[in-house]
Amino acid sequence: MILQDFEKKIFKFIRDYKIFNKYDKILLGVSGGKDSMSLLHVMSKLSKTMGFEISVAHLNHCMREEADSDESFVRQTCEKLKVPFFSKKVDVFTYSKKNKVGVEVAGRNLRYEFFYETLRRLSYNKIATAHHMDDLFETMIYRILRGTGIYGLGGLIPIEEEITKPMLCVDLEEIKNYVTINNIEYVEDKYNYSLDYARNKIRYEITPLFKKINPRYKESFFRLAKIIWGYREEVKRKFEERSEIGKDSLKLKLENDFFDAEIIRIAFLKFSKYPPNMEETEKIIKMRNGGVRKINEVSITKKYDSLLVKI
Amino acid sequence: MILQDFEKKIFKFIRDYKIFNKYDKILLGVSGGKDSMSLLHVMSKLSKTMGFEISVAHLNHCMREEADSDESFVRQTCEKLKVPFFSKKVDVFTYSKKNKVGVEVAGRNLRYEFFYETLRRLSYNKIATAHHMDDLFETMIYRILRGTGIYGLGGLIPIEEEITKPMLCVDLEEIKNYVTINNIEYVEDKYNYSLDYARNKIRYEITPLFKKINPRYKESFFRLAKIIWGYREEVKRKFEERSEIGKDSLKLKLENDFFDAEIIRIAFLKFSKYPPNMEETEKIIKMRNGGVRKINEVSITKKYDSLLVKI
Repeated sequence: MILQDFEKKIFKFIRDYKIFNKYDKILLGVSGGKDSMSLLHVMSKLSKTMGFEISVAHLNHCMREEADSDESFVRQTCEKLKVPFFSKKVDVFTYSKKNKVGVEVAGRNLRYEFFYETLRRLSYNKIATAHHMDDLFETMIYRILRGTGIYGLGGLIPIEEEITKPMLCVDLEEIKNYVTINNIEYVEDKYNYSLDYARNKIRYEITPLFKKINPRYKESFFRLAKIIWGYREEVKRKFEERSEIGKDSLKLKLENDFFDAEIIRIAFLKFSKYPPNMEETEKIIKMRNGGVRKINEVSITKKYDSLLVKI
Repeated sequence: MILQDFEKKIFKFIRDYKIFNKYDKILLGVSGGKDSMSLLHVMSKLSKTMGFEISVAHLNHCMREEADSDESFVRQTCEKLKVPFFSKKVDVFTYSKKNKVGVEVAGRNLRYEFFYETLRRLSYNKIATAHHMDDLFETMIYRILRGTGIYGLGGLIPIEEEITKPMLCVDLEEIKNYVTINNIEYVEDKYNYSLDYARNKIRYEITPLFKKINPRYKESFFRLAKIIWGYREEVKRKFEERSEIGKDSLKLKLENDFFDAEIIRIAFLKFSKYPPNMEETEKIIKMRNGGVRKINEVSITKKYDSLLVKI
């Protein structure tokens, strides 16, 4: 099978970051927009080369007139491509009101709930979403502005537990080009246009200015992201080396280096709790023997050169 | 002596980052603009509290009508404050043409040449410049856009060899406020307005948009910078641990971790050579035993788990 440049790029990215292997069973999140239709076409082609299995999950948000016809469109494309298709209708507005979250967040929560549900039901092991390089650097900028350390600056990650993003290596221009060249049909997925305030400012006002300073600014962001993905791996290795996982607690060995702070943050994430900020983390590290701090429902006790972390 | 909040902030920053101690002899770079006049006043006050010694260096760029009166203004202020004053006249345009660099770069080179000259002549040990938080985050943004790794993302550094930047913890607003409250006189240092294209775009077009996304975006950048300064220290420690310095070569021990790449970059900097990019660094690390690569006049030979770096 001959791969186009766009597909080769994604194939190389998948291989470099060990995103998929031939035994994987991958659920693709497909809204029907150009990003996810590209994902569907590329992954359908690569499944034949690489040997993995794919299915499609489409959440019908029932938020616009075209929602049902979008669903049919994705279903029919899947039939043509002989890819199993799963869908579900949800009521985003009710969820949004009930859980007091914005419509964007409600939609995302419901989407991932549905993806995980389907993943378990099919005994699949991976979810793939169509996030691309523009999403990546927009997230990086947003994180920098809102406040992030090095770990969080990685923005979107190619593979993290079940969730994969094999298209982070291609930008929106390349996607538009790919759908045009290959006559790939797609729906105008208005959710992409209803980005929130910050993302709109970044996409339509800030990045055009970036482009004036360096027309190849996307490469700069992508390269930095790759370096940070490597850094995250190093942090995770250090966490493995320096942590002992107990029944309902964690013991962390402090080594008086830069990674102490990162490892404390990972411990919070392991308990699904929001990690402390830089100043709080410093205070934890500097506690005297026997000292105790409680942050975000997690209690931390200093024992000589170790921390006992409990929920 | 009672310190104002602005001065306390700088004092704390100096202490936290061990920028100065009581035995230091510090040469202040003072153009006469509000940033460096604030530096002069704060350092003059702190020299009495902390015990260090200061002098002022003023380079007369001879580029504008007011250049000589600026020089007199700084000289007179120094006389009032009883701070030794040193100045020199240079011809920026000739240097710029002769060395084929822009006027900005020419000015900076000549300035630092003069600072180092004066430093040696007086047997002083530190240079302090008036770079502030706005300079810091503008540099961070510029570096991100042009391409940087984690190490370079630190932008400006509080202390690096002789060069110190004790005002990185205060922003332009705070400086304006300080000169107003204290009736500190200053000259309109037009060099600050003749920033280059990129910096103007960042200062006048990009950061106002950042402000709309997060009014406290400066704190986000400053916090990230502080984390990266810590990271740089860690990289330097790792370099010390893993390098052996020979007569005209360096031996680096590879440990198959994230820091291998960073340490290779530091080795280039030690030889005052521009470090290789991410892809080139990867290739160096992945060489087989006996492999040789030459990059930016530096030759690197792989010997088992070590690299021999020679100029």
